[in-house]
Amino acid sequence: MALVVDLEGERQKKPNLDKLQALVADDLKAVNEVIVQRMESPVALIPQLAGHLVASGGKRLRPILTLASARMCGYQGNRHIPLAACVEFIHTATLLHDDVVDESELRRGQASANAVWGNQASVLVGDFLFSRAFQVMVADGAIKVLKILSDASAVIAEGEVMQLMTTGDTATGEANYLEVITAKTAELFAAACRIGAVVAERPKAEEDALLSYGTNLGIAFQLIDDVLDYSAKQAELGKTVGDDFREGKISLPTILAFNRGNEAERTFWRRTLEDMDQTDDDLAHAITLMTKHHALSDTVDRARHYGAVARDALGIFPDNAQKQALLELVDFCIERAY
Amino acid sequence: MALVVDLEGERQKKPNLDKLQALVADDLKAVNEVIVQRMESPVALIPQLAGHLVASGGKRLRPILTLASARMCGYQGNRHIPLAACVEFIHTATLLHDDVVDESELRRGQASANAVWGNQASVLVGDFLFSRAFQVMVADGAIKVLKILSDASAVIAEGEVMQLMTTGDTATGEANYLEVITAKTAELFAAACRIGAVVAERPKAEEDALLSYGTNLGIAFQLIDDVLDYSAKQAELGKTVGDDFREGKISLPTILAFNRGNEAERTFWRRTLEDMDQTDDDLAHAITLMTKHHALSDTVDRARHYGAVARDALGIFPDNAQKQALLELVDFCIERAY
Repeated sequence: MALVVDLEGERQKKPNLDKLQALVADDLKAVNEVIVQRMESPVALIPQLAGHLVASGGKRLRPILTLASARMCGYQGNRHIPLAACVEFIHTATLLHDDVVDESELRRGQASANAVWGNQASVLVGDFLFSRAFQVMVADGAIKVLKILSDASAVIAEGEVMQLMTTGDTATGEANYLEVITAKTAELFAAACRIGAVVAERPKAEEDALLSYGTNLGIAFQLIDDVLDYSAKQAELGKTVGDDFREGKISLPTILAFNRGNEAERTFWRRTLEDMDQTDDDLAHAITLMTKHHALSDTVDRARHYGAVARDALGIFPDNAQKQALLELVDFCIERAY
Repeated sequence: MALVVDLEGERQKKPNLDKLQALVADDLKAVNEVIVQRMESPVALIPQLAGHLVASGGKRLRPILTLASARMCGYQGNRHIPLAACVEFIHTATLLHDDVVDESELRRGQASANAVWGNQASVLVGDFLFSRAFQVMVADGAIKVLKILSDASAVIAEGEVMQLMTTGDTATGEANYLEVITAKTAELFAAACRIGAVVAERPKAEEDALLSYGTNLGIAFQLIDDVLDYSAKQAELGKTVGDDFREGKISLPTILAFNRGNEAERTFWRRTLEDMDQTDDDLAHAITLMTKHHALSDTVDRARHYGAVARDALGIFPDNAQKQALLELVDFCIERAY
């Protein structure tokens, strides 16, 4: 009983990023400087377009992972700063190309770059940022880091193509979906964390532990993202709800609702997601069906599972402020669903 | 007089790629094996789409430059094989993204990948090939090569963005156009050649000479490409004429015709290229104006200039079969206009 009162009485106890952001604040400032500096180009459209996205208030979650992982591993140098910028460049390039692929009009509540400057510029500036990421890695000079991030980039592209192939395919199973999000999202989380151990020259066991933390955190993060796309919480945050639905994107909420649904419901899912024949009421009906089958709450439960694995992966590291903050980050990624 | 008879009587004396292709035949076979092998992915669409372009009968000019340059430098090893494949992967990724940007329906006389599989898949498979190129470079392990090709990739992307910004802008000058083609085309030619000297561990002077050869060859190549887009020769080869015109692309032929034209002619160029208001007769009229002002033949003359510089750049290398073939390649790139 006392516990219930506590939780309800103290909203501020909700997991948040404050501690993590405070810990990496100086490093993150340096990362932002590298980003702004390396976004430069005599071709004015490049910093304009890239800056639109880079400055649009993303959480910088992936570079923060590199920064916090490196410091948790006791790293005292500065190599993690430009490498964290590389991670953000790769992420930004992916977002630019994603928005072209999805024909998105909005990104982080603002007009997306492709909506402002056209698909063509978004494709090419994405290519530039991707190349720039490799230039920054080359300046670092470590083949091991280059291997981690070139491998990650190839896997991300494979994941994006896989996702394209599952779009509109209601026969997609949970295992296939998991494969997609592991590749398109978790791989970069994992690489970002692993680089922390690499620059700190920690033993393979710690590198593997950070890889596992990043992978599982990334999966949990994407699962919650997919829940949020159908949730009132998303609407509260000023973001649009139902983008995935309108694009015929298959995610765990749709997979669970489809698999648990009766024949009439499956007909609904096929019409809306496969045939892309949608009316104004369909999104509300989709959410009703998901709620009926606990598709959203069970997706959150799946996310909790991966979150638990992520937390345990950090078990081998000695307790320090960074570790505590990375543990709380797991809770934050999951609890943001509420 | 005798010379004229000779030239007219012996058509087979036209410069061609036979000697070069014969010299690199074994190496090129090995490159093609690497390409097919490294195009593989568990995601079936990737090798399908990439294979469509890779197998569609490109001349493999860029990887051939790496192969011939390395051998001209006396290189006896095998590193140039996978690195030539990297060069082709970067080129192929660029073509895939170009076709999305240009909304092209055709590429090398076949349906373009974006026309068959959609823009989305072309963007993502381009990203995959680009990442794969870096993975192959990382396996080679030389930071110097990684630097050359990551720098080249960033410059190419800048060139493509610059080109996008000049599209439809009849005020574009010759210097600006030269900057665009140096970045978007010549940079990769230069990198491909330079890598030959790098793997052969030749002194900087030879690296620089190959860089100059590649840059100038690339500029000449692109100038002729831009001439061919308006020429009867292109039609003879079964390729479409006027793609650049229909896309409002500014190239040296349009720049010369515009600058040398009277006010009525400039109004024509502004209507067709800036306002993109074109009728069926406009392409023929554009070619008439270009012919009137020697815009096409003078562009070929400009190409000859860069070709001459390219040839002289090879002067420091001892005579051997590869050098002769690379010299003849310059003539081939220019004479294909006729």
